[in-house]
Amino acid sequence: MAHPSVPSIGLGVLHLFFHLSATVDRDAVLAAIKTAEADDVQVVTAVILGHKADIAVLAVADDQWKLRHLQSSLERAGLELSQSYVSLTELSEYAQGVPENMRQARLYPQFPIPDKPFFCFYPMSKARDVGANWYELDFDRRKELMYEHGGSGRKFAGRVVQLITGSTGLDEFEWGVTLFADHPDTVKEIVYTMRYDVASAQFGIFGPFYVGMIESAETVLSELGV
Amino acid sequence: MAHPSVPSIGLGVLHLFFHLSATVDRDAVLAAIKTAEADDVQVVTAVILGHKADIAVLAVADDQWKLRHLQSSLERAGLELSQSYVSLTELSEYAQGVPENMRQARLYPQFPIPDKPFFCFYPMSKARDVGANWYELDFDRRKELMYEHGGSGRKFAGRVVQLITGSTGLDEFEWGVTLFADHPDTVKEIVYTMRYDVASAQFGIFGPFYVGMIESAETVLSELGV
Amino acid sequence: MAHPSVPSIGLGVLHLFFHLSATVDRDAVLAAIKTAEADDVQVVTAVILGHKADIAVLAVADDQWKLRHLQSSLERAGLELSQSYVSLTELSEYAQGVPENMRQARLYPQFPIPDKPFFCFYPMSKARDVGANWYELDFDRRKELMYEHGGSGRKFAGRVVQLITGSTGLDEFEWGVTLFADHPDTVKEIVYTMRYDVASAQFGIFGPFYVGMIESAETVLSELGV
Amino acid sequence: MAHPSVPSIGLGVLHLFFHLSATVDRDAVLAAIKTAEADDVQVVTAVILGHKADIAVLAVADDQWKLRHLQSSLERAGLELSQSYVSLTELSEYAQGVPENMRQARLYPQFPIPDKPFFCFYPMSKARDVGANWYELDFDRRKELMYEHGGSGRKFAGRVVQLITGSTGLDEFEWGVTLFADHPDTVKEIVYTMRYDVASAQFGIFGPFYVGMIESAETVLSELGV
Amino acid sequence: MAHPSVPSIGLGVLHLFFHLSATVDRDAVLAAIKTAEADDVQVVTAVILGHKADIAVLAVADDQWKLRHLQSSLERAGLELSQSYVSLTELSEYAQGVPENMRQARLYPQFPIPDKPFFCFYPMSKARDVGANWYELDFDRRKELMYEHGGSGRKFAGRVVQLITGSTGLDEFEWGVTLFADHPDTVKEIVYTMRYDVASAQFGIFGPFYVGMIESAETVLSELGV
Repeated sequence: MAHPSVPSIGLGVLHLFFHLSATVDRDAVLAAIKTAEADDVQVVTAVILGHKADIAVLAVADDQWKLRHLQSSLERAGLELSQSYVSLTELSEYAQGVPENMRQARLYPQFPIPDKPFFCFYPMSKARDVGANWYELDFDRRKELMYEHGGSGRKFAGRVVQLITGSTGLDEFEWGVTLFADHPDTVKEIVYTMRYDVASAQFGIFGPFYVGMIESAETVLSELGV
Repeated sequence: MAHPSVPSIGLGVLHLFFHLSATVDRDAVLAAIKTAEADDVQVVTAVILGHKADIAVLAVADDQWKLRHLQSSLERAGLELSQSYVSLTELSEYAQGVPENMRQARLYPQFPIPDKPFFCFYPMSKARDVGANWYELDFDRRKELMYEHGGSGRKFAGRVVQLITGSTGLDEFEWGVTLFADHPDTVKEIVYTMRYDVASAQFGIFGPFYVGMIESAETVLSELGV
Repeated sequence: MAHPSVPSIGLGVLHLFFHLSATVDRDAVLAAIKTAEADDVQVVTAVILGHKADIAVLAVADDQWKLRHLQSSLERAGLELSQSYVSLTELSEYAQGVPENMRQARLYPQFPIPDKPFFCFYPMSKARDVGANWYELDFDRRKELMYEHGGSGRKFAGRVVQLITGSTGLDEFEWGVTLFADHPDTVKEIVYTMRYDVASAQFGIFGPFYVGMIESAETVLSELGV
Repeated sequence: MAHPSVPSIGLGVLHLFFHLSATVDRDAVLAAIKTAEADDVQVVTAVILGHKADIAVLAVADDQWKLRHLQSSLERAGLELSQSYVSLTELSEYAQGVPENMRQARLYPQFPIPDKPFFCFYPMSKARDVGANWYELDFDRRKELMYEHGGSGRKFAGRVVQLITGSTGLDEFEWGVTLFADHPDTVKEIVYTMRYDVASAQFGIFGPFYVGMIESAETVLSELGV
Repeated sequence: MAHPSVPSIGLGVLHLFFHLSATVDRDAVLAAIKTAEADDVQVVTAVILGHKADIAVLAVADDQWKLRHLQSSLERAGLELSQSYVSLTELSEYAQGVPENMRQARLYPQFPIPDKPFFCFYPMSKARDVGANWYELDFDRRKELMYEHGGSGRKFAGRVVQLITGSTGLDEFEWGVTLFADHPDTVKEIVYTMRYDVASAQFGIFGPFYVGMIESAETVLSELGV
């Protein structure tokens, strides 16, 4: 029996991006997700636009073994894993004083997000360049910049829900950003708007973007002809 | 039934770059495009020069599901998707005051573009380097630089038609640039000339370039021996 | 008979990251590891999260031929090697005065590490940028920064055990960092915390991160359905 | 019938770099080249050293369709296209006053180049870094630097013939450089020597280098055992 | 008959890095090497550690065709070429005054190197960054830095033999560095030590590192189970 792999606070998060293979088995994909859900894994599925992937699976659970088992069973069902992202839910150092409901929403998010069918995922880090080094700023300055940045985001309340998960030491960037939006142009508008915030303009480093349409696993497969 | 994925303004845009496979099915490719067109998707096809792709398909529609369905059906027809770009039509913040016909042309472009058989696509972003950070310039300075840049472009009126689509938050760069030109050297001349504009010289970051010859889907396939 | 390939001090270290293939042979994998262990190779195995690998094998031995033979036999057993890292144990120039037990622990580490089931590996280098060049600092300044950095790490004593192995001239980065932690969020916390140390903030360059769960080879294979 | 794709001045240029496949058909390769030559395409072939390619094919023609047809027919003959470069012949802005014979040699080069059997191709761009931005220099300064650079090159007259073709807007770099040399060390010497010119030292960005031996297509294939 | 491809001074050098394939033919590999050696090609073989390659073949000859024929025959014998490096022996501009025996050793090296069974190859270039541009230094300053650098290396006399071959214009970096060492930690020590030299600290750019164990071709294959 394997030892549990459970964070001492928050949940494990795994973003999986798959291509269809010629041998994909619809029933096996759906069974893999059902099995995970029965084991208290929350699963969000989306169809991805373009060559980077066909299907995104966002999975959240207390024990990373549950996430890894879902990964394995989806691969055995004929989905080819082309990209992934490993992170954990977290309450950032700048948000330690938020009300309990916000604290819970960040550490223990609940899916699905109603009425937000457009999906976007990208990883990000803070720059450590000569002349623009986030990690040399003092806490107060960083907090100030994060508040400004948060203020830009709050103007999109009701149109976008964001989930920021931490990945320093776990994957190539320091955070994973998952956006749930009402329309595709809302994602473009919020990311473009926030790019003018000092926190992004000077310090933001952004990785590959995966976008698409959130639907149930059944609909995702049907829309892809599986 | 999937929820629509429609921008609140403008249209969805998907650039698809395919290689031929040994099993490509001419009739299925043509049928996929016909089906999309019957569903109000505008489709532009081109033969690409060099190893990056054999065929480019530029598709524009109100609902991104229509774009994704076209992608899937072309892949099922034996085209191998090697690269893509996801964006939306937009009216930039610097062009809010343009006449209604220009506004419509940018948000709701009409294809084909007559007498412009040479195709070029590349993505671009604005630099956020220490000492050259576009997102730290104020709006008036950015507008001034964009006007200078637009002036360079307007000298090519009648020789090049450009379509700038927005992709911040949607794909790896911030904009996609599609050029429709009379001759291949016109593309070289306009991009080279504009590189001296401050907006490009100091701030332009340019991604991979895909160039080739626009023809009907039937001619594209025939010229490639399919 | 090949000549031995033995460092004049310390041990050879090889991190191997494998994907399962369709023809993986459980018995052959286990036999390869047993054979290596019988030849005094220490072997640590882990299941990796995400697309980068399925299985990590960390092997430590006096003679690099033993490491290479293990690599070959695991490949013959149907594991596909997707990534690796070559390094040697070392006592850094800043640690020459440590007590003998610490010296031994660094040069001749002993596995398994009890009660630390979470695995993390990443390579790192020190920056040589204009304005942030580690190799232009004098020894005393570097030692001071390393002590500050070590102090940050010591706050995690009991929660994380780290193995720093040297790879300058041997692989793409200058050091390999292997962390053994109690919980996945401990890795995130220690790497995030240490990123504010000047040694990391200004000078740290970090490569790809591989994380997962340490188990016996038998359990690793069973958990992956092999 | 496709529309011609002809530059308004100069010629289309396509560098193709192929690997042999198991099914390469010598006769089909030779027939593809003969057909192109009969259609006024100039074709230069070379064996490439190392893993990047086995065969280079440099093709020059008025209409890019002829280049694309050659590409397709070589691929159908069992050559696997691994890399390519798209450019056009040009007379640079600094060379507008050259004598007519030089003008013709640059816009309408004639192959083969006698007694220059060593082949080298690499793409290049001019830097747009903060503190070293070619596109912010005024024309006179750029012309001065290009004259200095040209002077370095002219010292190799009789040993190297160079073809500089323009690719701004057409491929990843701004120019393609093809060298035809008497000996392999001549290429090393000229590129090394010119690297000290300010135009290269401060502003040159160089892409992958492909080098090898120019021979007739028949000899190229024979030497590769085809 | 192909024209010779012989440098006017020195020798052609080709580093080849292969993976084993399922169809590798031991006898054909050995015959390929024997044939080359009979044609005055010097061949050094090594087993490589890790995923980058299984076998390194360093070949040195007067005519690059001999190197290319060896490459082709090894590929036909079932070795898969994954990486390579093209260079030429040279006497650097800073070493023009060395004694004749050193001159010969650099231009016409003799293999095998006795008692140096550990192999290391990496390519390197000199930086041309704003604020650290090797090619803007005057000759005397460069010579001074190279002498300091050489002095660091000479402290390893008897433990390491190095071969620096020139590749400006021939491959992605400006030089190839091949080290022959007594122990694997000697390579780590020399490269680490020299990194503090100004020539490396400020100006050195280092490519991928390939390390392993030098043995006869027969032993290399046997150790890999071929």
